[in-house]
Amino acid sequence: MIEQSVFNENLQMVREESPLVHSITNFVVMNFTANALLAIGASPVMAHASEEMEEMVSISSSLVLNIGTLSNKWIESMHIAGKIAKKKGKPIVLDPVGAGATFLRTSTAHTIMDEVRPDIIRGNASEILAVAKSAVSTKGVESTLNPEDVIEVGKELATKTGSVISISGETDYITDGKTVYKVTEGHQLMRRVTGTGCAASVLTAAFASVNKDYLTAATCAMMAMGKAAVQAGKEASSPGTFNYKFIDALYNLGK
Amino acid sequence: MIEQSVFNENLQMVREESPLVHSITNFVVMNFTANALLAIGASPVMAHASEEMEEMVSISSSLVLNIGTLSNKWIESMHIAGKIAKKKGKPIVLDPVGAGATFLRTSTAHTIMDEVRPDIIRGNASEILAVAKSAVSTKGVESTLNPEDVIEVGKELATKTGSVISISGETDYITDGKTVYKVTEGHQLMRRVTGTGCAASVLTAAFASVNKDYLTAATCAMMAMGKAAVQAGKEASSPGTFNYKFIDALYNLGK
Amino acid sequence: MIEQSVFNENLQMVREESPLVHSITNFVVMNFTANALLAIGASPVMAHASEEMEEMVSISSSLVLNIGTLSNKWIESMHIAGKIAKKKGKPIVLDPVGAGATFLRTSTAHTIMDEVRPDIIRGNASEILAVAKSAVSTKGVESTLNPEDVIEVGKELATKTGSVISISGETDYITDGKTVYKVTEGHQLMRRVTGTGCAASVLTAAFASVNKDYLTAATCAMMAMGKAAVQAGKEASSPGTFNYKFIDALYNLGK
Repeated sequence: MIEQSVFNENLQMVREESPLVHSITNFVVMNFTANALLAIGASPVMAHASEEMEEMVSISSSLVLNIGTLSNKWIESMHIAGKIAKKKGKPIVLDPVGAGATFLRTSTAHTIMDEVRPDIIRGNASEILAVAKSAVSTKGVESTLNPEDVIEVGKELATKTGSVISISGETDYITDGKTVYKVTEGHQLMRRVTGTGCAASVLTAAFASVNKDYLTAATCAMMAMGKAAVQAGKEASSPGTFNYKFIDALYNLGK
Repeated sequence: MIEQSVFNENLQMVREESPLVHSITNFVVMNFTANALLAIGASPVMAHASEEMEEMVSISSSLVLNIGTLSNKWIESMHIAGKIAKKKGKPIVLDPVGAGATFLRTSTAHTIMDEVRPDIIRGNASEILAVAKSAVSTKGVESTLNPEDVIEVGKELATKTGSVISISGETDYITDGKTVYKVTEGHQLMRRVTGTGCAASVLTAAFASVNKDYLTAATCAMMAMGKAAVQAGKEASSPGTFNYKFIDALYNLGK
Repeated sequence: MIEQSVFNENLQMVREESPLVHSITNFVVMNFTANALLAIGASPVMAHASEEMEEMVSISSSLVLNIGTLSNKWIESMHIAGKIAKKKGKPIVLDPVGAGATFLRTSTAHTIMDEVRPDIIRGNASEILAVAKSAVSTKGVESTLNPEDVIEVGKELATKTGSVISISGETDYITDGKTVYKVTEGHQLMRRVTGTGCAASVLTAAFASVNKDYLTAATCAMMAMGKAAVQAGKEASSPGTFNYKFIDALYNLGK
């Protein structure tokens, strides 16, 4: 459990430093995740041309690699950007969207893990299981497993890879292989809005931009998601309203 | 006319089975159509890499091919996905966005119709006319014709192709060549929100996922659109508000 | 300063003619800018396949080239579309998103300026400075400069290129090299919603579609943005709500 005061400090740092988060991400969530970053006080940039990766990574504070709508060119740019970010010490978040659903996704996630060594991997239970085991078939991008089922797998994966593993679900579990933090806040309507998982990943990058303790950073991001969802859920009973109230709530966190 | 009770049953099936709808669609509407599917109780997945078409189609319940922002690679993937879906008996919905506006769009729609044989084709009047006749120039993606003008064309097209034809407009007409169902519900603000036609197509796929009577399924989808629009129109007088109230209304249909 | 009555007349023309605005733009803002165009009474179309550029430009009233998420294929299509639009006398708006941040963006903007000769260039202060000087490193897509700093640069650029230069910021400055119009309306929450700059560019194209006096057209677009933002800011204190209230306000301008 991370104290509220620690969360507040980290949130304050995001707002003060307003880190530029560079995402190579899927087409579905670009607008929503950009707005989530702006709402919490960070800045988004999306760029995928290999020709501009060196410069874009250089001016950014962190990098998100999200495999939600892949193609070969984009995979190539993810590797280029990832290697530059690694060399420059910028935190890298991998979101293995739909890993387990297709070989392309699972193998892309594995190759990025092997060659880029992301600092944090954030996914739902079935995605984390897929990148850990490569032996589970998931139903698209929606998790049918509980994160509880994969805590042990997550710990092993964290130990083996050195990445912080952030497993989203009704309760979120974030681990570096030794410590496991739980985040219980959240709301069931998050599952009826596309891109909430992807938003969690960009917020994870925003917090990791300002705090090199990635276990704390990843946990603060899930706390931000959970708290904003709780607030949105108080004001909305349907997903359209929930969607924009969630963005409002990110903006108003701690205010 | 489809009875309210039939609509309710079909809606219930969508909610219970929560079909995974795979879209290869245009960039503009991905977020909105994903949220429309989630709101009605289905699940979205977007994927266009040819390497993952076989697996993605296999785990999906239906396929949407939407030609709104084409490129050669995407057309190729539409054909690959379409052929796999056909072989596996998964319903295929073609949305010929902007057919008639350019040769690329009209010919892509025709080639998909010839080679993939979609189960349902959903478009506005000018798009349906374009794919039927290939002899009309439409003004972009907005229809300037009334669906009434093309009912006969739609019936002939349905008979010739074996596809259910769903023509959207102030009144929607859905036909298998013999029966013509009308849906009169709707709201004029739908025309001021981008992607409502595309949302109709993904909902059509969601209903077709749970009911192999595609005439009924396509009609239920247009009824869902119309009813949600009527409800949203009661709560909103401007398109920004209408947009999210429409998503709320899809979620609350029949509740 | 442009009179309110002139603005009203131009707005009226947009609503009556409902120009079709063709955008080759970035993935992040496609949905939002399409909805902004629909809200103000214009029509959007997005298309990037080189094969359909000739026809799409021909049926459109204006063209927007937005370099927010580049790749070689898209740059190629921007040039093709731009040259056709120029030949056909359709107004072209260049939005040099992130120019200055990477060589690819700056050089793409320059090449488009040299070869396409856009009628209007709309960007924030650092972007305008970058395309004018090619000697400033900007922080991603968010401006850290005030437009005031670059008015003189903008005037010189306008004179040199013959393009109207529209510089967005807390106060907007629009110039043809001789006259400088100021737009002071706006709201600080615009900076917390992604794509407001890109929306300004498509609205600029909408107004330029109906008024060949591009200085007036570009100014009216910024007035529309500013007035809608002021109205949205009266009804919203957070960016999620502001986002849809802004679309509502565009729809209700002058009503």
